[in-house]
Amino acid sequence: MLLQGERLDKVAGSNLSIIQSDQTFAYSIDAVLLGRFAYVPIQKGRILDLCSGNGIVGLVLSARTKALIDLVEVQARLHDMAERTIRVNQLEKQVTSLCFDVKDTKNNLAHSSYDTVTCNPPYFQLGGNKQVKEQRALSVARHELACTLADVVQAGSYALKYGGKLALVHRPERLADMMEEMRKCNIEPKRLRFCHPRGEANANIVLLEGTKGGKPGLVCEPPLIVYNEDEYTPAFQREYFGR
Amino acid sequence: MLLQGERLDKVAGSNLSIIQSDQTFAYSIDAVLLGRFAYVPIQKGRILDLCSGNGIVGLVLSARTKALIDLVEVQARLHDMAERTIRVNQLEKQVTSLCFDVKDTKNNLAHSSYDTVTCNPPYFQLGGNKQVKEQRALSVARHELACTLADVVQAGSYALKYGGKLALVHRPERLADMMEEMRKCNIEPKRLRFCHPRGEANANIVLLEGTKGGKPGLVCEPPLIVYNEDEYTPAFQREYFGR
Repeated sequence: MLLQGERLDKVAGSNLSIIQSDQTFAYSIDAVLLGRFAYVPIQKGRILDLCSGNGIVGLVLSARTKALIDLVEVQARLHDMAERTIRVNQLEKQVTSLCFDVKDTKNNLAHSSYDTVTCNPPYFQLGGNKQVKEQRALSVARHELACTLADVVQAGSYALKYGGKLALVHRPERLADMMEEMRKCNIEPKRLRFCHPRGEANANIVLLEGTKGGKPGLVCEPPLIVYNEDEYTPAFQREYFGR
Repeated sequence: MLLQGERLDKVAGSNLSIIQSDQTFAYSIDAVLLGRFAYVPIQKGRILDLCSGNGIVGLVLSARTKALIDLVEVQARLHDMAERTIRVNQLEKQVTSLCFDVKDTKNNLAHSSYDTVTCNPPYFQLGGNKQVKEQRALSVARHELACTLADVVQAGSYALKYGGKLALVHRPERLADMMEEMRKCNIEPKRLRFCHPRGEANANIVLLEGTKGGKPGLVCEPPLIVYNEDEYTPAFQREYFGR
């Protein structure tokens, strides 16, 4: 089940396992927070996770809903890890991994068919002359090589039902872009949450959920503070580790 | 110096006094936080406060800078209170109260002439049939009767130098509108701060500063939490009361 360099890790706050590898992809706190933040229909429905990597967001979501979950990842290597992770957790009936480019969503999925779309997109924009020197698998996951924020929001808006939710996690520096891209695609920003490493530090993660066709009116939820002195805060332990 | 129904209050965290009246206008925590949040040039420069009411934001700013401060208020009654407040505090050489409609800014002020523009605008949008039943002075201060968020941002962008800062305080539900209006007017959102009544409560105040002609890239500063149990938090005491 495991290829060279791979390992089986526990998913924080769950009984699920996930195949990871430092050479290709290992999940970050951001992905877990997104999987806990997004609105999900509980009993039935359809959820789509874009730029799904090794499947971490979909796994976290699977523990919260009986809805069907589709993962979309452009890199065959990560898609393959996700497929094996689905089998390890015996989630074949609920979770499906698909391998295509987010920019080709219209050719691969029916429009207006999902209740929720999630995405933990590549964070870094490509500078004019900036060389990306990492391995390709890491580069695609980290940089906007294969898909941009605009690509993600366009694909999400296409796939979402009217009234469906698009939930994104990103660096706070991109918040104005996130809101602008959402509104361009008829998705109204509705729920916002920031994660700060400490109470007196700037935020390093932002979670934003919008509603397709929603009315204006944003709520900023309580801040999630990770550390107080050298310990995890009770709120973070609850949110991340589920205890 | 005081007219009927007026009183002289202390400005939180300062030695300044301000003329207030429950019939027309009394400052809120929001205005003080804006006066402490906005970037100010220290030694010289020019600052403009739009929708200045009884002058509270300008007063708070005056304690942080030697820059000249112009206040703009459309209501003659509030403009008059601000003029008397300026005299009470002997700030005639630094602070000037002007009385005109923010929508007429181009006819009253030179363009590209201010380093910082601040505004604590009317918060409430007018519904289609909604009657505003308060007294006119309160209504204009609270509702978008005399000026909208778009009017404020347009006036600010006109008045600001290239590289100057526009700092706004508003309800979090309008954040997407704030960012959209700023970008429409070539002001890039750069600094964001939320105020939450308690650590586990949604935010009820947002502060946002943008830079005219600035590059994209937003920072979300530490959350300001007002209460912990029934006491002000140390951070709030420092920020609001200056102690």
